[in-house]
Amino acid sequence: MKVVKFGGSSLADGEHFAQAINIITADPQRRVIVTSAPGKRNSKDTKVTDLLIQYANEVLNNKPYQQTVGQIINCYVEIANYFNVPPKKLAPIIDRLKELPSWHFPNHNYLMATFKAHGERSNAELMSLILQQQGYEARFVTPTEAGIRVTGTPNNATVMPETYSLLDHFSFNDSELLVFPGFYGITLAGHIATFSRGGSDITGAILARGLHATMYENFTDVDAIYAANPAVVDHPQAITKMTYREMRELSYAGFSVFHDEALIPAIQGNIPINVKNTQHPEKPGTLIVPDKGFQPADIVTGVVSGKHFAALYLHKYLLNKESGFTLRILNILARHDISYEHMPSGIDDITLILDRNQLDDELVDVICNEIQEEINPDQLEWIDNYAITMVVGEGMRNRTGVINDILTPLTEENIPVPMINQGASRISIMIGTYDRDADKAVRAIYHRFFAN
Amino acid sequence: MKVVKFGGSSLADGEHFAQAINIITADPQRRVIVTSAPGKRNSKDTKVTDLLIQYANEVLNNKPYQQTVGQIINCYVEIANYFNVPPKKLAPIIDRLKELPSWHFPNHNYLMATFKAHGERSNAELMSLILQQQGYEARFVTPTEAGIRVTGTPNNATVMPETYSLLDHFSFNDSELLVFPGFYGITLAGHIATFSRGGSDITGAILARGLHATMYENFTDVDAIYAANPAVVDHPQAITKMTYREMRELSYAGFSVFHDEALIPAIQGNIPINVKNTQHPEKPGTLIVPDKGFQPADIVTGVVSGKHFAALYLHKYLLNKESGFTLRILNILARHDISYEHMPSGIDDITLILDRNQLDDELVDVICNEIQEEINPDQLEWIDNYAITMVVGEGMRNRTGVINDILTPLTEENIPVPMINQGASRISIMIGTYDRDADKAVRAIYHRFFAN
Repeated sequence: MKVVKFGGSSLADGEHFAQAINIITADPQRRVIVTSAPGKRNSKDTKVTDLLIQYANEVLNNKPYQQTVGQIINCYVEIANYFNVPPKKLAPIIDRLKELPSWHFPNHNYLMATFKAHGERSNAELMSLILQQQGYEARFVTPTEAGIRVTGTPNNATVMPETYSLLDHFSFNDSELLVFPGFYGITLAGHIATFSRGGSDITGAILARGLHATMYENFTDVDAIYAANPAVVDHPQAITKMTYREMRELSYAGFSVFHDEALIPAIQGNIPINVKNTQHPEKPGTLIVPDKGFQPADIVTGVVSGKHFAALYLHKYLLNKESGFTLRILNILARHDISYEHMPSGIDDITLILDRNQLDDELVDVICNEIQEEINPDQLEWIDNYAITMVVGEGMRNRTGVINDILTPLTEENIPVPMINQGASRISIMIGTYDRDADKAVRAIYHRFFAN
Repeated sequence: MKVVKFGGSSLADGEHFAQAINIITADPQRRVIVTSAPGKRNSKDTKVTDLLIQYANEVLNNKPYQQTVGQIINCYVEIANYFNVPPKKLAPIIDRLKELPSWHFPNHNYLMATFKAHGERSNAELMSLILQQQGYEARFVTPTEAGIRVTGTPNNATVMPETYSLLDHFSFNDSELLVFPGFYGITLAGHIATFSRGGSDITGAILARGLHATMYENFTDVDAIYAANPAVVDHPQAITKMTYREMRELSYAGFSVFHDEALIPAIQGNIPINVKNTQHPEKPGTLIVPDKGFQPADIVTGVVSGKHFAALYLHKYLLNKESGFTLRILNILARHDISYEHMPSGIDDITLILDRNQLDDELVDVICNEIQEEINPDQLEWIDNYAITMVVGEGMRNRTGVINDILTPLTEENIPVPMINQGASRISIMIGTYDRDADKAVRAIYHRFFAN
């Protein structure tokens, strides 16, 4: 049995729905379907999830929301019309979207989560209507019915382990197609809570694990995951097969095709993931598999840069004899709810690499001031424009000299490398550059390993 | 005015004393002399400090100590005889060494510190006697008289800042030679406490700063500090000049010619250090100078390996999303009073590099068990045979491609490099290898940068 998840762009309009249905019905193994909310129909369009957020904010701020809810409903009506779904059948979906403002929520965050979740929910319900209309035995299943239990904040939930024992008891017959909405689960108190953005991938993975799928197919709008970002490298090579942890390392610095939290249930259930293109389902896509027994075909699988980093360099004489030094720095960060990414250390120096997105300029000043005051370093330097380039490959494991092949093209291109971090992970090398050099670094490394 | 410190091997017997006195009297600037305890006279000899430790332990364990104290005294008697110092003048030194067991000490640690300190103290007193005998105006000055105040444990003391204001008020006339014992200071309660082993270098540096010397000359038994360990590389190049921080980085991994804690007072006082050979005072030795205005002659100044490291590798899926993860690990280490050296981190991996000397096998088990229990990593691996190679040079600062020149010879020699840490310090690159490869790595890198 395969779990098949469709991304928002794959379910944006009737035509795309038709293509998704072709895919579902082409393989009798495809029995569990997970929907995203409708994506953009064209470049000027707004995603339904964004319209729902706007809708929620209008309700929260007592502003008129009729136009927004109309836009949302119109999107589903257009899809339903494409398949001649009778208005009577569509009505409950539309009514529910209209009634949302009258529901009771514990607080604003729950309201937001519930509004957002209805993009996926409405699409799943509509998909099951269309499948039924086409003569398939299809069933719309809510997270409540399936038992997808979550904890955490309403808009950043985490699946609870008991979900898997509940899914074990979820019964369905061999002939039916099950359609689940992605993106959300139900809290213990019975409220809707969503995963982080793009979280339909997570729902698919949970169902693949919980319902013991043999494969998790993730349909999106690209032919495959590429060895480098196509916006940086022209026509990069497609990755046909990689391991879970290669995917994880590549996601970290910027590969965003597949949600990295969705890897966990897949890993736990040992379920291979196939990322494929809805428009070209005949192409093999990218297969993501367990590490065990994986035979890497190449040394390097992918190269990616993330430019959203900053670094704080500290120098203090005899620093490494001061016990508790690191603890004091970490406590300052913790006080401001800031986590660090990496912390390369010299003898008397330490560099804290931080995610720049979690910091505004004021906070940077506050943290630097507190460190200056409490730690009193001889030197403190804030480097705002840091990029991290990850070179990832199972084939690099235990291989001598790869680092040389990575650094040689950077030297040739005269790219300064203020940081190298090798040795923590065995399947990747992390290189720090200034953000202006990041794309050049990716191209240089890519061409070294993938030329021709 | 210059402070001149002689190491133990430079004061081991009468002949060496004579050579030291030649050096002192050859330059009228050499006015402050710091003595170590007598070192080995031949390869089978025992250092006086070690005899004093034996003496202290025999006293503590109520064992006979007459033979040991006799051996110690004999060493001073031989030196005194070489210079025909009258027995009456030597008697107070000998009596004091004999009387030590009858003194009162707050606890065993203070006893040990006081016994040890008498190697230096007796040698300084004897040196001033000999200088006086030769017609020089020499004065033996104790740390109490000078005001060398220390805190910390009795056998691992730290100088107190007030030492410098006390030294500012220490008066001496232009014609006299001052002889200070190295290695120890006086606690606030008036007891002797020693610096860490080799701490006479520290006394010299404190006096150089406190008495405003223009130069701190450190006489030892090598012509210079070399760019690599002569036991590893044949005839390595001498370092004629380097900065304080280059010295510091090289000391870290194993260059032990100059005590690294002794660098601090020199840095604070901006006093150049000249490491010279007592047997060849005409040779320039190695000059250690401030960073400011330093013009590096070469890219790399030195290469050194330390083999006393171990690494703990941890892998946990989505580790870097777990807040407080590092804090929890550091707290486990702190509970056992273990500090970490470096902590390179990947996305889901972290490697803790530890000084193996501070851990016995049982503690390794305990720490690994606690981490397994409290952190529950997916993978935990203890790598016992870790070596760190430091490549150090002010000339590496802001230079692109040096790392390539360092790694290429390692690749050519097929040396696995499980860890590279570049970017914390700007004047060094840290490379992790297995200890069996450490010497080979040093040779390979040395020959790349210093060939011919």
